[in-house]
Amino acid sequence: MVKENEVPGRLEWRVNMPNGSSRILATESRETCSRLQSLVMGIVLNIRGFLDKAWSLAVNEPKKVVHCLKVGLALSLVSVFYYMRPLYDGVGGNAMWAVMTVVVVFEYTVGSTLYKCVNRAIGTCLAGSLGIGVHWVASQAGDKFEPVILQVSVFLLAAAATFSRFIPTIKARFDYGAMIFILTFSLVSVSGYRVDKLVELAHERVSTIAIGASICIFITMILCPVWAGTELHHLISNNLEKLADSLEGYAAENFSVDGSKNVHEKDSSKRLQGYKCVLNSKAAEETMANFARWEPAHGKFNFRHPWKQYLKIGASMRSCAYCIETLHGGINSNTETPEFLKKPLNDVCMRLTTSSSKVLKEMSSMIKTMKNSTKLDILVDEMNSTVEGLQNSLKIFPSYQHIPTPDPATEETPNGTEEPSLKPTALSLMEIVQMATLTSLLVEIASRIEGIVEEVKELASQAEFRDESSKKSKQTQTEINGNDGNEHEVTVKTLQQV
Amino acid sequence: MVKENEVPGRLEWRVNMPNGSSRILATESRETCSRLQSLVMGIVLNIRGFLDKAWSLAVNEPKKVVHCLKVGLALSLVSVFYYMRPLYDGVGGNAMWAVMTVVVVFEYTVGSTLYKCVNRAIGTCLAGSLGIGVHWVASQAGDKFEPVILQVSVFLLAAAATFSRFIPTIKARFDYGAMIFILTFSLVSVSGYRVDKLVELAHERVSTIAIGASICIFITMILCPVWAGTELHHLISNNLEKLADSLEGYAAENFSVDGSKNVHEKDSSKRLQGYKCVLNSKAAEETMANFARWEPAHGKFNFRHPWKQYLKIGASMRSCAYCIETLHGGINSNTETPEFLKKPLNDVCMRLTTSSSKVLKEMSSMIKTMKNSTKLDILVDEMNSTVEGLQNSLKIFPSYQHIPTPDPATEETPNGTEEPSLKPTALSLMEIVQMATLTSLLVEIASRIEGIVEEVKELASQAEFRDESSKKSKQTQTEINGNDGNEHEVTVKTLQQV
Repeated sequence: MVKENEVPGRLEWRVNMPNGSSRILATESRETCSRLQSLVMGIVLNIRGFLDKAWSLAVNEPKKVVHCLKVGLALSLVSVFYYMRPLYDGVGGNAMWAVMTVVVVFEYTVGSTLYKCVNRAIGTCLAGSLGIGVHWVASQAGDKFEPVILQVSVFLLAAAATFSRFIPTIKARFDYGAMIFILTFSLVSVSGYRVDKLVELAHERVSTIAIGASICIFITMILCPVWAGTELHHLISNNLEKLADSLEGYAAENFSVDGSKNVHEKDSSKRLQGYKCVLNSKAAEETMANFARWEPAHGKFNFRHPWKQYLKIGASMRSCAYCIETLHGGINSNTETPEFLKKPLNDVCMRLTTSSSKVLKEMSSMIKTMKNSTKLDILVDEMNSTVEGLQNSLKIFPSYQHIPTPDPATEETPNGTEEPSLKPTALSLMEIVQMATLTSLLVEIASRIEGIVEEVKELASQAEFRDESSKKSKQTQTEINGNDGNEHEVTVKTLQQV
Repeated sequence: MVKENEVPGRLEWRVNMPNGSSRILATESRETCSRLQSLVMGIVLNIRGFLDKAWSLAVNEPKKVVHCLKVGLALSLVSVFYYMRPLYDGVGGNAMWAVMTVVVVFEYTVGSTLYKCVNRAIGTCLAGSLGIGVHWVASQAGDKFEPVILQVSVFLLAAAATFSRFIPTIKARFDYGAMIFILTFSLVSVSGYRVDKLVELAHERVSTIAIGASICIFITMILCPVWAGTELHHLISNNLEKLADSLEGYAAENFSVDGSKNVHEKDSSKRLQGYKCVLNSKAAEETMANFARWEPAHGKFNFRHPWKQYLKIGASMRSCAYCIETLHGGINSNTETPEFLKKPLNDVCMRLTTSSSKVLKEMSSMIKTMKNSTKLDILVDEMNSTVEGLQNSLKIFPSYQHIPTPDPATEETPNGTEEPSLKPTALSLMEIVQMATLTSLLVEIASRIEGIVEEVKELASQAEFRDESSKKSKQTQTEINGNDGNEHEVTVKTLQQV
């Protein structure tokens, strides 16, 4: 084994044996060494890659780092209950529950923290009182039946609560509460069999949970709060802009006459892919909207801000993104559109994408600033008239071509400079198919953008966006104007807010 | 107030007052009564609706009901530790941890239960040992520094662990473990300040958690197990079928000559919407694939079954579904395609959708049975040749029309029975646009279906689907054949399985 791999002049690994002789380290051992080395190197590289990724995450999203520090702070605060003798004597060994509450309840956004706090509180109280009740009933039934009643009640209630978690409406709002209900009920009804001072225990436990929850709520709402509602608001507005970018990027790549598409190759390809974010943001939107309704009024948002409307905007945006995806996917065709049609259609397509993306951008800035836009209607009209223009030009363009010679080498000739002895030749459908698909997809995209416009307008009316010109909310205006016939409007608004 | 609403002959509500007189119940009170009534009715109706929903859920998905019973059973089993004196003396008051483990860890699928068990075990052990270590260091530092060291360590480790939960790779596999790590570490390092017998406590706690976890694993794997992997497998195979149904439904509605589309109106509209399930199943697929890799070998699936490949199939299916959505969205056009083009193109479109949906159905059944299909390649070839046929017919069809009279009322005439004095008239692009878009979308869908075929074939090779003809796995064959040159293949397969 050793001999066959020996090479003269090569570095040898010698090991001194106990009997005085020395042995060359076998190739196997050397191989093991190098394998070990590469393994260690691999691990080091992996760890380095991981740390690099973590670092870039921290740099890109400092909010998340702040959240981590907040968790650390909350836990430090809650552990003070252990270290300070008077506080410890107050809550006793149950301080554990406060720690547990902080760890489990503290979430990234204010909404999810509140959701968990409220759910934990409701679940604990409901299950606690029910548990004590069942325990009292069981204790009346005598020693023999007590465990049976407790067992059966645990079985039935746990099964029922678990089933309720499958029902969508419960799942959306009280999933965590149902779990806490099962947990608390089992603990109370089971431990009640041993611990006699049940009510006192329950009181202590609830108070420690309250301490933990209030520390969480305090820290999450005071120190750099991350509101689920605000995040959702920004997500929707950014997604609108990304859709616009995708459309513009597509237009720049396919319809532009000059070579401007090569200027920022990398940047533009990133912009082009914007629609993919829209396609994949459904789950995030739903989670955020779910948490947002637990949040109190903050910033520009009321307590009853119409978060559900954002989901509708999201849905219509996705429906538009499907079309854009199809567009980007490349319309499959082997033949090129004849040049004489391409030029003028390119122009009108370019105009349409530009006006479509203008509408999208206007909506994005409208949502961002929460102001009604006077320009939006104008831009939509413009988009619609461009659509009409496109359709008209389709009606005008004939499906035949003036070809100078029988062979179809029209594309090579310098376009439109000289036109000798032309003869109208009918195009085959194949030659038109790509351009036709392109235009009708663009028209479809425009009509889907109108769907988004509807939803955004609905949001604007529900959330009472301010008028751009007056820069004051409608409500303040009506209040200033007094009761000059606007009473009804004020009442309606107040009712909507209740 | 009372007078203005009184009506002669109307039923009155009288209340006898303490001073002997009687008073007519004011309209307000009556209104309150009726409001209360309607409120109660509303609540009753709501509860009834809720129960109806729950009942239909239970009927449609009996698996979920079984899961609920399993949770009840697990909790009943674990509470036995409390009721039976010898067991209680064994684990003491820490039995609480067993109950908590069961409630928190028991999930719907085997994979997610295992994921949580393993995460809980790793998190608890890691944090426990680290906590004891930190506690030892702190105890060496003297009374003054002990709380400081503990506080700082809790702050730093909690922040670091929370941050790790934001990193996608950690989030996918160890999110729950990181939370348990923070929880256990804080509890150990904090409570260690008071409780002296720390190691003993840790031992008890770990053993109770082990009891809870093993009860969960036992019940979830033995009694009607729901495997995340199997669910994913069925989801993908069903989604393929739904895509096929959507295509067929579209074809039946748009290309069929006879009135067959009205036969099962409701049923067909449900089938038509099948693609929407595909559009929305990304999150479910990812969750299931994530849990599936925690599952041991079960049914037809090895431990190393290529679950990730299912995600790739899902992605390519969604890309196809985007196109189908665009197709279903209705190609926006105001003019109809001229009848003389519609008929033959309808035929070829019908053929294309039929062959496309055949390919999809074949893949669905291939995944369902986990057998290689000999027909798949033939069907793909057929689909491709239909695409070519479509493109050829596009090349052949001229873009002009033989019109008998100047007015465009061709559609009213009985088609193709008599053709008096025709004159070729060029079509405008507008008249062709809809049909052109339709055909090119269908071609695009076919090309995306080919993308799915690639991914499914990759799955078949990775998961070693059996051959349809032999009905025996390749591996068994090679093992039977002995070492006749197939050694390499066996080795490769064995390596893949390691």
